[in-house]
Amino acid sequence: MRNPLSQLIETIEPSGIRKFFDLVSEMDDAISLGVGEPDFDTPWHVREEGIYSLEKGKTFYTSNAGLLELREELAKLIYRRQHVSYDPVHEIMITVGGSEAIDLALRAMLDPGDEVLIPQPSYVSYLPCATLAGGKPVVIKLEEKDQFKLTPEKLREAITDKTKILILPFPNNPTGSVMDFGDLKAIVDIIEENDLYIISDEIYSELTYGKEHVSIISFPGMRERTVYINGFSKAYAMTGWRLGYAAGPKVILEQMLKIHQFAIMCAPTTSQYAALEAVKHGDEDIERMREAYNQRRKYLIHALNDMGLTCFEPFGAFYVFPSIRSTGMTSDEFANKLLEEEKVAVVPGTAFGECGEGFLRVSYAYSIEDLKIALERIKRFVKRHTK
Amino acid sequence: MRNPLSQLIETIEPSGIRKFFDLVSEMDDAISLGVGEPDFDTPWHVREEGIYSLEKGKTFYTSNAGLLELREELAKLIYRRQHVSYDPVHEIMITVGGSEAIDLALRAMLDPGDEVLIPQPSYVSYLPCATLAGGKPVVIKLEEKDQFKLTPEKLREAITDKTKILILPFPNNPTGSVMDFGDLKAIVDIIEENDLYIISDEIYSELTYGKEHVSIISFPGMRERTVYINGFSKAYAMTGWRLGYAAGPKVILEQMLKIHQFAIMCAPTTSQYAALEAVKHGDEDIERMREAYNQRRKYLIHALNDMGLTCFEPFGAFYVFPSIRSTGMTSDEFANKLLEEEKVAVVPGTAFGECGEGFLRVSYAYSIEDLKIALERIKRFVKRHTK
Repeated sequence: MRNPLSQLIETIEPSGIRKFFDLVSEMDDAISLGVGEPDFDTPWHVREEGIYSLEKGKTFYTSNAGLLELREELAKLIYRRQHVSYDPVHEIMITVGGSEAIDLALRAMLDPGDEVLIPQPSYVSYLPCATLAGGKPVVIKLEEKDQFKLTPEKLREAITDKTKILILPFPNNPTGSVMDFGDLKAIVDIIEENDLYIISDEIYSELTYGKEHVSIISFPGMRERTVYINGFSKAYAMTGWRLGYAAGPKVILEQMLKIHQFAIMCAPTTSQYAALEAVKHGDEDIERMREAYNQRRKYLIHALNDMGLTCFEPFGAFYVFPSIRSTGMTSDEFANKLLEEEKVAVVPGTAFGECGEGFLRVSYAYSIEDLKIALERIKRFVKRHTK
Repeated sequence: MRNPLSQLIETIEPSGIRKFFDLVSEMDDAISLGVGEPDFDTPWHVREEGIYSLEKGKTFYTSNAGLLELREELAKLIYRRQHVSYDPVHEIMITVGGSEAIDLALRAMLDPGDEVLIPQPSYVSYLPCATLAGGKPVVIKLEEKDQFKLTPEKLREAITDKTKILILPFPNNPTGSVMDFGDLKAIVDIIEENDLYIISDEIYSELTYGKEHVSIISFPGMRERTVYINGFSKAYAMTGWRLGYAAGPKVILEQMLKIHQFAIMCAPTTSQYAALEAVKHGDEDIERMREAYNQRRKYLIHALNDMGLTCFEPFGAFYVFPSIRSTGMTSDEFANKLLEEEKVAVVPGTAFGECGEGFLRVSYAYSIEDLKIALERIKRFVKRHTK
């Protein structure tokens, strides 16, 4: 029998996060600060709308692009936050999480050999999805000295005449880094000059601390070049519902929708009804959870710096990204030994790109109680292993 | 600004079904016999499990492959129906409907230029998904004289040294055709000799009338060559839940899972809990709905033949595929005029491939009352237009 697999698929590495959590799942007594998922249940009034829709028998397909009413509310939401208008009929579509939208955008836009700029450390999907879509991923290595922001210099350096797309992953998973107004302004001209398109993954846009999130779409000329991606998983604690969305120019969205129609049909109906409630009446929930995250964030930065795992202050998402260089260990070594010796799971920075070496991703989407226990253990571990 | 789109995506036609139903949705008083979706609500005890899971706050990601308990139950179900064993840990994965599984299988297996045999008329996704995955779709034109079955002759004719995959879409949408034991036995040797892989889309496997469904996986040697695809949409009236699954050899499934992990993460959690109830306690629901479909099927075949739209007896799915040649109209003409003049929506056979010309897809996933009104109108229409 011949090999059933494509040559391309065999070159793609499985996610480093997953590999690590297969280990964790086998240990009953481990505390995990690892998963990129809110610890809150979905707010009750949102679940309730999902329940009502099931009681009423709303168990049928929606239109391919999703419930029009939901798209209309999302257009209003984006306008409220970023003062940018999208036509809900042709320029917004509902997807199976933000992740499907990333995959769709790359599949709709890339020809073989087109280069996709991927700032790292960042979420694990960009690189394999770009490869699978026939593109050539080009990694931009972000640095701690820049607080892991994308600088104009780094962007300029990476552009060739093959570059078509820049992925903008801010607020960033795993570093917590955000790009503020000035940071974005500094790259807008470069994007324009080089005629680049942008996939802006703003799934953490509602989770910023002490500063308002700014989107690239709010800069003149950028809306027409950008597929804006967001979703319900992080802001509303709705991961399991698998609901995201994309907004962008009609010419791109209608092609993404074509793939979505054939490969997915529509996003889950129950989730769409629940999401409608979330986007209409969920601002207070976001506020409440953000407050809790912020409290934990401060606690964590302080505690980690105290024990010699220095970290810059991250203003977004729910991760800190401390340096472990003082211990002399690699990220993998540190994470594996910590799990083995102290039963605390964190993710090695290298899971998010080679330039994550020397760092860990520590999530604070966990209760203060768990964080305290985990940090006591990490402290003991670091003390034992620091030469 | 340069063209944002890939060259490939611009070559792909949107679904013909969709184009047609955009028209229908604008007409309030139309009766549709068009959509490929059960008219039943999801059975209450299944919805109830979805509701319970929401009440209990089960709103988090599941593992990428889906709830292990669900995969275990599906392994049992496949064994119960086809006497074939799959390892639920490595050989079964839960997907966003059967449609995601089709897309994943093609993406995992095709190298550029590999040929994919697609018997038509058939579901609209195979061809664009094969193209998007870099493959070369090769259409096998099925014929009414063979009751739209795939014959050994037609299969042999289509095979070249580039052929890698055969798609087996039975019970068939849109023709209602099934391949029984003898029909499948006749092609097994050809598959083996030519070292082909199979994607067997058996989403309608629970809806056969008067004969048991037989799967290609139950033939010696075929299990190792087949990605078996099924789901909850049709059998349990669960379309909006977006839940399907794939079973197959570990070497293929683990690559499909890799793409799924990056592009989708996991199937919706609420739907997985509901599906667990469906697969454990849903056999009676299937029986009840199948009985209702069967009654409508008989009525429809009789009524259509009576008015001169001859159709062979379809033993699967919930479609009949009458010939309209007696009217002298093309499928498109007939469907458009019927909608315009009598406000009845059916799908032109050509939406499922060129060789569907001269036929219509009429769905009987509608109440007997609606069917009766619709058929009166079709009768009037045919009478008026037959020369």
